[in-house]
Amino acid sequence: MTVKPNSRVAFQGERGAFSEEAAVKLLGEKIVPVPQPTFDATFAAVGRGLADLVLSPIENTLAGSVHNALDLLIESGLSIIAEVVIPISLNLIALPGVSLEQIAAVESHPVALAQCERFFRTHSGLTRIASEDTAGSVRAIMQAGIPARAAIASRRAAEIYGGKILLEHLEDDPKNYTRFLLLSASPNGTAPATKLSLVFQLPHLPGSLHRALEIFARRKMNLMRIESRPVHGRPWEYRFYMDLQASASDQEAAAAITELGNCAVNLKILGSYLAAEDQSGKST
Amino acid sequence: MTVKPNSRVAFQGERGAFSEEAAVKLLGEKIVPVPQPTFDATFAAVGRGLADLVLSPIENTLAGSVHNALDLLIESGLSIIAEVVIPISLNLIALPGVSLEQIAAVESHPVALAQCERFFRTHSGLTRIASEDTAGSVRAIMQAGIPARAAIASRRAAEIYGGKILLEHLEDDPKNYTRFLLLSASPNGTAPATKLSLVFQLPHLPGSLHRALEIFARRKMNLMRIESRPVHGRPWEYRFYMDLQASASDQEAAAAITELGNCAVNLKILGSYLAAEDQSGKST
Repeated sequence: MTVKPNSRVAFQGERGAFSEEAAVKLLGEKIVPVPQPTFDATFAAVGRGLADLVLSPIENTLAGSVHNALDLLIESGLSIIAEVVIPISLNLIALPGVSLEQIAAVESHPVALAQCERFFRTHSGLTRIASEDTAGSVRAIMQAGIPARAAIASRRAAEIYGGKILLEHLEDDPKNYTRFLLLSASPNGTAPATKLSLVFQLPHLPGSLHRALEIFARRKMNLMRIESRPVHGRPWEYRFYMDLQASASDQEAAAAITELGNCAVNLKILGSYLAAEDQSGKST
Repeated sequence: MTVKPNSRVAFQGERGAFSEEAAVKLLGEKIVPVPQPTFDATFAAVGRGLADLVLSPIENTLAGSVHNALDLLIESGLSIIAEVVIPISLNLIALPGVSLEQIAAVESHPVALAQCERFFRTHSGLTRIASEDTAGSVRAIMQAGIPARAAIASRRAAEIYGGKILLEHLEDDPKNYTRFLLLSASPNGTAPATKLSLVFQLPHLPGSLHRALEIFARRKMNLMRIESRPVHGRPWEYRFYMDLQASASDQEAAAAITELGNCAVNLKILGSYLAAEDQSGKST
């Protein structure tokens, strides 16, 4: 992966969103964050010249549908050039100088609120307030200077807006990770890669997926993820997303993809990149 | 499927939620709705004696994670006894007597707000207000009697709370469908079934999924959906959810499942039921 410092990175949400946290973990602090209000706007940002790269959640996300991101990825024509996994650690963030006892209401995206049921059970006097954005809740409370209100958001959102973290790890499930993809207008080129993402359609016949997988099984290529999604407007037709432990520059993989092209339609290589699990020396 | 009239049906959300709409489409108006605040509470409702059945979104849902519902389904020990697919049609709902010109703010769950981008672009003067529940927004506006505010929610929510539908089909994508499952403490028994849902784990070896699918391909059994999910706390291990065009009472299917048990671990039949596509004569 070759990414210039000062690259403009589009993501859905406000400054301090978990997607920004993921972008910084992957690319460092020198990136220029380009926050976008919607997933549609995020995926269109490169084509519109607003950003060089897109950072999007793809699995187990906090806000919005992963399926939506997968579908937008295909339609966008962008290529995956890297991935990163971060823990979704939820913090209770308030104005500096405010203590937990002073908080009467807690604001965040409903999906984040729903991931903190245990906290709300043990603090049953707190009013829940829904918002459109986790980081945006921190910004709103800091800007308005409301001492009786706290937000649930990322550590980065607290840092950006000058909030104080009253409590950490509000999330019910400590094993709450989200996988993000870094997308670019051009594919990875010669950078080292261990993971290959594909999408294709198969005829709706018994055994068609089995025959497609045989192409990879015969070559002892490892399947890391598979997901079927109905094709919009075409009942009973399915699109398959597949992650393989392979690189597009590998001859075996190239031969397998050629073979797959004979039995699948709309075959597309989404990207060839270093799996998050194969990265080391990254700061966390 | 044998369901008594007056069955108590638990679902996530308030009265008038899309899950309630799905339950009524499947079971009729005689059910007793048992709204629950969270997915955890919904899936626990049968075990706690609060409900006879659970109705949960499973694919392409409006609010909350589908993965969460899949994981809860496995852990709950409940069986799928039916499925139903409904269009997620979003309506603008206000107090009776109020016209669109009087509306200054629109309230709904952020995921619903995000699905109406086109509406908000063409009505740019409207303030967006996030809430925890689509139907709950209608209830709140009706109870408080706020003429300048509208909610985005289901037609059913408008009917239950006495709201007036100002506009229909606010959703950007008209092909927005959600699949819901009906769950019971005991499996379907002898009712006619065309779909079989399974979950199992495979050893992380190249070709293991291919070998598992071979069992079904050899019998010409049709695969309708497959999804891999990482196993919590066990990196690199995957669980596979699979929908097959088959019935558990079918001898071929029974033989295939026995054979699958030899190469998979934690194999579990989630249910055998009539596919939504094979139902007819249902009111819509």
